[in-house]
Order: sequence, then structure tokens, then C-alpha cells
Amino acid sequence: MSDLSTNILTIIAEIYIRPEHKDAILGAVAACVIASRLEPSNISYDCKRDQNDPKHLVFIEQWESLDALLIHEQTAHFLAMKETFTAGLERPLTVTLLEPCPRMA
Amino acid sequence: MSDLSTNILTIIAEIYIRPEHKDAILGAVAACVIASRLEPSNISYDCKRDQNDPKHLVFIEQWESLDALLIHEQTAHFLAMKETFTAGLERPLTVTLLEPCPRMA
Repeated sequence: MSDLSTNILTIIAEIYIRPEHKDAILGAVAACVIASRLEPSNISYDCKRDQNDPKHLVFIEQWESLDALLIHEQTAHFLAMKETFTAGLERPLTVTLLEPCPRMA
Repeated sequence: MSDLSTNILTIIAEIYIRPEHKDAILGAVAACVIASRLEPSNISYDCKRDQNDPKHLVFIEQWESLDALLIHEQTAHFLAMKETFTAGLERPLTVTLLEPCPRMA
């Protein structure tokens, strides 16, 4: 489904985990993945690990709109995950909001 | 389809375009997107633009296996796109090979 005619929002979010916080963070991320996929306006929500750096996790998410993402960021599961990031990351969470590329299907 | 039981390869690739090379690169990328999706072992192939930096493009790709990606990287459409990157990028292409996260669906 091309998002040219819709306002589907794709985002890439990345974290680098401090090893000593790995269990707490992976647990919160796993719970957030499951709960986020159940949100009515979520289209897809995946968290994958960098094959070359196990501390580096990449979230690939699609939401029906920016509003859907903003609602997501107020959910208990997101806030619980975000809490673990406070002390648990080597560098700040990065979030890249993506839009369709000009001239592309 | 969870890739836990399969060896689906998800990759994130990123480029930062030199403005003066924008048309050449976008043209080659558009052709590569279309042709890549037709490759038998491609699952998905998208190129999106960073809402906050129009020079920053993010490819989100899924391949049946690493071999499928390696075959892709020898195709005419990929090599033609890569050719435009030689002089056209502000910094080198980055490619992150992703794998399933432990403890996650």
C-alpha cells in the first residue's frame, strides 16, 4: 500500500544499550513491541538488532498518522520503555520521521 | 511473518545526497526501487526521505537471505545507483544488517 496517497508515517528509531542495562531494556522493549502492535492506529512495529553491534537496536514503525505516534508516546507501555532509557542508553534515542521520496512508488 | 523461524534479512541503508547530484541520484534510486521489488528473492524494498533533512534518504529492505542481498548487489539497477553515489554523496553509504531481537516476537 503506497503511502503517497495516505499520511502513513514511517519512523526509524535507534538506541545503543549500556550492557549492564540490557535485561531491563530488552524486557521493556519486548513488552512495548507487543502492546504497540495492538494500538488501533499502528500499522507495524518491529525492533531488530544490528548484526554487527548487539548494543544497537533499530525500531522500524509505521503509524496511520503523526497524531497516532503522539498518542503512542503517551501510552503506559511506551513510557515504561522510555523510563528504562533514562539511565540505560550509551547515547540519546534517535528518531527519524520519514516521508515518501519524491518520484518514487 | 516472523523472521525468527526464517532467515529473512532486514537492512537499513542510509545516504546523504549532495544537492547538486539530487536529480541523478533520485532517478537512479527510483529505478532501483522498482527493479529491486521485482527480484525473486526480495520481500520489500522502500526508500523514504527524512522529514527533517531532504538530503537524507533511508532504504528499508527485506530479503529472503544474505545471499539474496549479495545477488542484488550485482544487479545492473543496483550498480547503476551505486555509480551515482560515487561522487554524489556527502558521506559514505551506511548499511546496517539487522537480525531478530532476542526475546521478541
